[in-house]
Amino acid sequence: MSFTEHPDFAAALSLAGQLADVARAIALRHFRTPLAVERKGDGSPVTVADRGIETEMRRMIRAAFPGHAIRGEEFAPEGSGGFTWVLDPIDGTKSFVTGYPLFGSLIALLQGDRPVLGVIEAPALRERWVGCEARPTLCDGRQVSTSACRAIEQAVVYTTTAETFDAAERRRFESLSARAALRRFGGDCYLYGMLASGYCDLVIEVQLKPHDFMAAIPVVEGAGGRITDWRGAPLTSASDGRVVAAATEALWREAIGELRAD
Amino acid sequence: MSFTEHPDFAAALSLAGQLADVARAIALRHFRTPLAVERKGDGSPVTVADRGIETEMRRMIRAAFPGHAIRGEEFAPEGSGGFTWVLDPIDGTKSFVTGYPLFGSLIALLQGDRPVLGVIEAPALRERWVGCEARPTLCDGRQVSTSACRAIEQAVVYTTTAETFDAAERRRFESLSARAALRRFGGDCYLYGMLASGYCDLVIEVQLKPHDFMAAIPVVEGAGGRITDWRGAPLTSASDGRVVAAATEALWREAIGELRAD
Repeated sequence: MSFTEHPDFAAALSLAGQLADVARAIALRHFRTPLAVERKGDGSPVTVADRGIETEMRRMIRAAFPGHAIRGEEFAPEGSGGFTWVLDPIDGTKSFVTGYPLFGSLIALLQGDRPVLGVIEAPALRERWVGCEARPTLCDGRQVSTSACRAIEQAVVYTTTAETFDAAERRRFESLSARAALRRFGGDCYLYGMLASGYCDLVIEVQLKPHDFMAAIPVVEGAGGRITDWRGAPLTSASDGRVVAAATEALWREAIGELRAD
Repeated sequence: MSFTEHPDFAAALSLAGQLADVARAIALRHFRTPLAVERKGDGSPVTVADRGIETEMRRMIRAAFPGHAIRGEEFAPEGSGGFTWVLDPIDGTKSFVTGYPLFGSLIALLQGDRPVLGVIEAPALRERWVGCEARPTLCDGRQVSTSACRAIEQAVVYTTTAETFDAAERRRFESLSARAALRRFGGDCYLYGMLASGYCDLVIEVQLKPHDFMAAIPVVEGAGGRITDWRGAPLTSASDGRVVAAATEALWREAIGELRAD
């Protein structure tokens, strides 16, 4: 049974929209204002906005679905059970703290291990992609679909930064992207929205955490794309952080052929 | 005499705003629609939007100031004389053609060799920076100023892409940016707007043409920043394409110390 037939589907979808509304409001209240930037244990930056958004999202989820589990970037896991909300209050914090508008808030709902609902919210650009298992992805309410690109030679390839690749990853990325029509950098979660809307054709990344990629799965798949790890296996909370998303099955197959370790 | 006291100042400022309005309208009509992308002689992409914007801008300039010269990215030079309009209809065409919102239109007016008026228009973000010699820079009508950052260790450093650096340039960029608080990529002309508004502190680029940097000069200087070539010399139409822009004199001096060839 797809989640769209579940009795809680409508309420969960509505809540996801409200979580994104709150994320947008809080993010824009802090964006381009003086912000103290703390460093977390892994060196990544965090601000009062990241924590404020996640705190408010958790409060709203607990109120609406007290039986659901919550996993977020900034605080400890809460609860367990059949449904889990996976939250990244600000994806692209380095963009956010430098006034660069391509950051986003990510909201996913997992049924068991399956992401059945995903929202990519881009506050500064006032754009929002919503994907639900077995439904077409919407951007700001309008149905979107990935491009028809089937070959790397015609593909626009994006990655957030080449700096996170290790030597072997970089070799494979270079070999693949050298054949592409255009290779571009930067974007974080916004790239998966761009892919869903057909603006770019291939997104290749490493070192992503489940809160970075879970929301992208229903968004990309509901728009007709494929998104997996570099071996072609489904993304799960145990994935190694390597992600490839492609506009079409054919392009995905070609990309996997290059990215898969021999 | 500063250009603000020239009898044509008000009309030129008003025209610059109208040119930016037209650039925004035409760019947004084509952004994220299917576009034929041609390659120019140097391999850089160009579309009907680049040409449409520049054609319309030239028509408007000729109508308002028939005695002014025009230099633009897409067409042959027109006229000569004391005043020259320097135009880049779409800076960041690779962003534009891939649906990435950080592209811009650049408009500069030179009196002799001196850029006295500069506009950075970001159509998809609906933001516009206007700088005039001897006046404070405005972003969407509000006065902006660069940050107070005086040391590289506290600086957010941006460059569009590290891929355009040659080996020596890359060494110097690496050595400088390794000391920075944060190093980020991507943005094209939008980076100079971000610097003027105080969001980032240092922008370092190479291979820029006069139409890429002329508009940024009044914007950055009117916001309190410094912008020169890597040796610290003023940017002119004969510059070597290396550009450094800094929030403060002290930061600029430190950056020049690292970037200047020995």
